[in-house]
Parts: sequence; C-alpha cells; structure tokens
Amino acid sequence: MIAQTPAPPYYAVIFTNVLSEPSKAYQEMAKLMENLVKDQDGYLGHESARDGLGITVSYWRDVEAINQWKHQSEHLLAQKLGREQWYQSFKTRICRVEREYGFGSENT
Amino acid sequence: MIAQTPAPPYYAVIFTNVLSEPSKAYQEMAKLMENLVKDQDGYLGHESARDGLGITVSYWRDVEAINQWKHQSEHLLAQKLGREQWYQSFKTRICRVEREYGFGSENT
Repeated sequence: MIAQTPAPPYYAVIFTNVLSEPSKAYQEMAKLMENLVKDQDGYLGHESARDGLGITVSYWRDVEAINQWKHQSEHLLAQKLGREQWYQSFKTRICRVEREYGFGSENT
Repeated sequence: MIAQTPAPPYYAVIFTNVLSEPSKAYQEMAKLMENLVKDQDGYLGHESARDGLGITVSYWRDVEAINQWKHQSEHLLAQKLGREQWYQSFKTRICRVEREYGFGSENT
C-alpha cells in the first residue's frame, strides 16, 4: 500500500538490501519490527517491496524520531542479526522529503 | 542491485505505484525508460522492486536534473500513458538525501 503521509516536509529512510538467503527467522523478525515501528513516536508509515532486491521506505516526522527508532532495543537486536546473519549487503539513506504529488484512489 | 551513489547531499525520487493490471506495453515502456534515464545529465542510479506494490527510487545530482528528466519528451509520453492506462495509483516524493551508511560487498 502507498503510505498516507502528511504534507512535506517530513523525512524518509530508504533501506535497500540484498538477503544472503531466505530465512524464516528473518521473516519473523521483519514482522515483529513492522508491528513495533507503528507505535514509535513520529512514525508516519512505510512501503515495502522485494523481488531479489528489497526496498523498504519508512516515513518520519523528523530526524529525532528516526534516531529514536534506530536505538530502540529490539530494533538494535534486529540490526545486529541483520549484519551478522541475514543481509549480504544493505544501504540506508536518510532523506528530507521536500515535495510530492500523486494520482489515484489510494492517494490522498 | 544497490545503487552506487556518491557522498550526500544528492537527491532521491521515490516513486511508489500500484498497477491496474500487468501489461506488456507497460513492461516495454519501463525498459525504454530505464535505458533512456541512464543518459540523463545528473542521473546517479536507481533501485527497483515490485511485489504487488512497486517501488522505484532514482538518484540525482540536484533538483534541476530531476526537472529535466520529468520534462524529457519520451518520458512525458510515458507519464501520460501511466496516468491514463497503467497505474491504479502512484505517489512521487522528491527528497534530499542528507546521510547514508551501508554494509556488505555491493556497497562502497
């Protein structure tokens, strides 16, 4: 689903990744993180797709909210396991959303 | 593949979309656009994934380069067909990449 975000400016974290191999533990952790992130202060929504390359974009009110999520305790464990076991490579980009436009029913 | 981008700041265009239905014409246009964009001044790379939701993130030197690509003539036709025929909905977000970090072999 396309995330319903407020008018800019707000922030986006683009997380692009390649998995080492499919793993049930990874999928369970991903689901846990998805549930946890929704309660984070300043979280605005996220979008996710994978076909070989995985792309998850999460949206945030400000940089402070991003930093709080980065240091959330279960998320720290997920990041550690990600580096040690699940990801062959990843890149995280922190961006300020300056402008947006859209089209269609899923889009407000 | 994870895009090999220079040190920030640079720009990202996050294009999130839902297709109305799979279409050969759409796939051919997507391939054409992928070939064309590589020759655009200021283009730095892109990443793409689809499983239901499609996410394409393209990276750019600056806002001027993004605007030039938005108004490139074949790309204007693709945008028109996209709105009229291919996309059920989409959202385009223009972002300034401020910070990044990564991990793994695909990552410099």
